[in-house]
Amino acid sequence: MVRNFLCVAAVAILLSGCTNAHKTERIAGEKPARVLRHVVLFKFKDGTTDQQIKAVENGMSALPGKIDAIYDYEWGTNVSPENLSEGFTHCFVITFLSEADRATYLPHPAHMEFGKTFGRYVDKVLVIDYWTKQ
Amino acid sequence: MVRNFLCVAAVAILLSGCTNAHKTERIAGEKPARVLRHVVLFKFKDGTTDQQIKAVENGMSALPGKIDAIYDYEWGTNVSPENLSEGFTHCFVITFLSEADRATYLPHPAHMEFGKTFGRYVDKVLVIDYWTKQ
Repeated sequence: MVRNFLCVAAVAILLSGCTNAHKTERIAGEKPARVLRHVVLFKFKDGTTDQQIKAVENGMSALPGKIDAIYDYEWGTNVSPENLSEGFTHCFVITFLSEADRATYLPHPAHMEFGKTFGRYVDKVLVIDYWTKQ
Repeated sequence: MVRNFLCVAAVAILLSGCTNAHKTERIAGEKPARVLRHVVLFKFKDGTTDQQIKAVENGMSALPGKIDAIYDYEWGTNVSPENLSEGFTHCFVITFLSEADRATYLPHPAHMEFGKTFGRYVDKVLVIDYWTKQ
C-alpha cells in the first residue's frame, strides 16, 4: 500500500517536473517559426449592455490563465475607419503552438463554461484559424 | 539659385536622416507596449483560380516591402475545424505603430494599385482594426 502510494507520488512529481519543463521551455525558448492563430470575431446582440460586454471580455481574457494550451492571447475592439466590419466589434486572437493544443482548448471545460455563460449575448461569431506566414 | 538648391539639399539630407533614425529605432527598439492590428479577411469569387489567388497572396505580401508604415505583417489560410468562417478563406494581419501609419497605408499608391489589380477576384472583404490588449 505504502509502496503504491510512493510510486504514485513519484510519478506525480515526475509529471509535474515535465509540465514545468514544458512551460519553462515555452517562456525561455526562442520565438517559434510559425504559430497557429485562432481569430474569433463577436457581434453582440442589440440591447447587450456595456456591463455584459465587459463580462464577456473579462471571461475571454481569463481563459489563458485557465488553459495551459494557450500560448499567447490578445484582443481589442474595432477602431477601423473603413466601415467593413459587418457589425463585428470584438476581435480575440488566441495563439497555439500546435493543432493538438487547439484540440485541447476547443472542448476544454473552461472554454465550454465561457460559451454557456456568455453565448446568449452574441449575435454572430466568425472564426478563422491560420498558420502564420510572413 | 545655388543657395536655394543647397538649402533644399540640406533639408532633404536632414529628412533622410530622420527617416533612417526612425527605421533604426523600430528595428533596435523594444517591443512596443501595444500595436494597431489591421485584420483583413478575403472571400474569393467562385471560379477564381489557384493561380489568381496565389497572385493576390503575393501582391499583399509585397506591400510591407513597399510601404514603410507597415510595422509587421503575417497571413494565412483558414484551417479551422469549426466551420464558422462564413466563406472567408484568407486572413491578412497588417500591424501599425500608430493611426498615422495606418493613414499613410490606406491611400498609399502601392495599396491602391493592389486593390485595382486584385479587387476583381474578391467576393467579400471584412476589416476589423484593434489596439492590442492582453
